[in-house]
Amino acid sequence: MKFATLQDHTLDGRLLLVSRDLSRCIDAGALAPSLLYALQHWPSVEAFLRARYDALNAGELQGEPFDPRRCAAPLPRSPQWCDGSAFLNHAHLMAQAFDTPPIPNLDTIPLMYQGASDDFLGPHDAVPLPSEADGIDFEGEFGVILDAVAMASTPAQALAAVRLVVQLNDWSLRAMGPREMRTGFGFLQAKPSTSFAPVAVTPDELGNAWQDGRVHLQLEVDWNGSRFGQPNGGEMGFGFGELIAHAARTRRLSAGTIIGTGTVSNRSRTAGSACIAERRVIEMIDQGAARTGFMRFGDTVRMEARWPGAGHGPFGVIEQQVVAAGAVPAAGLAA
Amino acid sequence: MKFATLQDHTLDGRLLLVSRDLSRCIDAGALAPSLLYALQHWPSVEAFLRARYDALNAGELQGEPFDPRRCAAPLPRSPQWCDGSAFLNHAHLMAQAFDTPPIPNLDTIPLMYQGASDDFLGPHDAVPLPSEADGIDFEGEFGVILDAVAMASTPAQALAAVRLVVQLNDWSLRAMGPREMRTGFGFLQAKPSTSFAPVAVTPDELGNAWQDGRVHLQLEVDWNGSRFGQPNGGEMGFGFGELIAHAARTRRLSAGTIIGTGTVSNRSRTAGSACIAERRVIEMIDQGAARTGFMRFGDTVRMEARWPGAGHGPFGVIEQQVVAAGAVPAAGLAA
Repeated sequence: MKFATLQDHTLDGRLLLVSRDLSRCIDAGALAPSLLYALQHWPSVEAFLRARYDALNAGELQGEPFDPRRCAAPLPRSPQWCDGSAFLNHAHLMAQAFDTPPIPNLDTIPLMYQGASDDFLGPHDAVPLPSEADGIDFEGEFGVILDAVAMASTPAQALAAVRLVVQLNDWSLRAMGPREMRTGFGFLQAKPSTSFAPVAVTPDELGNAWQDGRVHLQLEVDWNGSRFGQPNGGEMGFGFGELIAHAARTRRLSAGTIIGTGTVSNRSRTAGSACIAERRVIEMIDQGAARTGFMRFGDTVRMEARWPGAGHGPFGVIEQQVVAAGAVPAAGLAA
Repeated sequence: MKFATLQDHTLDGRLLLVSRDLSRCIDAGALAPSLLYALQHWPSVEAFLRARYDALNAGELQGEPFDPRRCAAPLPRSPQWCDGSAFLNHAHLMAQAFDTPPIPNLDTIPLMYQGASDDFLGPHDAVPLPSEADGIDFEGEFGVILDAVAMASTPAQALAAVRLVVQLNDWSLRAMGPREMRTGFGFLQAKPSTSFAPVAVTPDELGNAWQDGRVHLQLEVDWNGSRFGQPNGGEMGFGFGELIAHAARTRRLSAGTIIGTGTVSNRSRTAGSACIAERRVIEMIDQGAARTGFMRFGDTVRMEARWPGAGHGPFGVIEQQVVAAGAVPAAGLAA
């Protein structure tokens, strides 16, 4: 199944079912008012949602044209958002770039930080940030949305809790990151609101691109209209089973929790990068100095995950512009 | 006003108004079904809630006896939970205890980590944890619950967003903390679900104990029935205005966000400590070695904030027992 969330100025939005080819959609709010509600009541709503999804794909339900510009993030807010750094190529490069103390057990224990989960941005929302001097950067990633997970679950139990797969941009402010890492308390100011591609999909929609708890798709990243990178998601050092189990080691995860991969990154230089910071450290290594600057207000970034050589990707497209904070109104507070 | 939340097996619980002396309460669900709803709709519900609160205190409404054992945390889930380390005495002691690299700007930039906010524990809930070997510790703290806060607010603007004050226990697992600090990604496994005293109060209820964005009350902490410490909350190195502004530097905070002080700690040795780790480092400094172990399954901790010499405190009491995970059922998932 493929889901999206209509921005209707409620905190959780309105649930849409989207056709497999992303061309059409139907309002599913009569079955589950929001995607969060569907995740919290999955056993009682799944079969009804699937019947309507099948009817939509078969043309038995007409629906209406799917317009991702009217979409919020699939989950505009979620119970928890924990982001890993599971691509070891990226983790090793960044450790060099940040000039921070060596990270112990980097290859054997997942790195993961807790992010804010109350204010996610939709795929075409403007991205309001306070200052260009903060080192504005994108991070192209994949993520999973979970059923409830018990404390101390095994990686196999954890992987079985994956309900949906998503594509996201974990916005980062590089002027703050190294200082926050040195405190040991982790990222806070360095991680503003995260953005999501419009469509969340059940793992079966990915076919053989969903293997070993990894998303084997290319993530195409364009900055101001120029290709920046297209690394493949299959090169994760830890699969989602390990990442989820890491998050659940000493806590329960509520249904709707999102776990991210961290920046997609490949050892091959020809894949390019999914964030500017990684390109900068490669420039330092290969050319002696970082040449690429960070983003400016007005800049755009586009991200789409695809099967190599195929048409549209399963999650739709993130296409956003960075703007000065204050240029967009604060989110509404209707419940 | 004083609020509590009846555990009714919904995610947000049911709103109660509690009399000033904590003896009686009335169901306020007809005005606002939950405290989260009240915070999201404060301008339209505040006057109605206050009229009923005044009637309860005047004896015009009878209500029923207030039973904190039926209470969840005032907010069983919240949009964000960001915890500072604002008592510099504690921060300096812990830096010695953890043997981690020196923290830059420790006295001038607040330390703060992002915690999970989807599964808070009530004041008498059992505390299920997976292993005694994780170094189970309590941390007695104060916190504030906020109205929505705009990105890049000043400390004065931020302090004006304080709606409620709370008392909490930020459970910590000391075997994980130093390793997670060394990664730079911050606390995740080291911070299981946080617990809250039953009653959240508007700042006016604290009288002159609410000054300079600080809670000037003693926090009495008893471990297995013996007094462990009674430090005063007034000694914070940063006030709540600074802590909230720090959290909001690059993001919006949704109504209902909770900001914590970190472990209450005083320079005077006679105040004792509000967590075991701090006592252990004091033992190392004063006696050459840590003598106090961490908590065992079956241990209890009791915390109550009070005016010196006065009767009951404004927030009620946290009184919990640590148990092996699996000994209590997972939280219900009804929406």
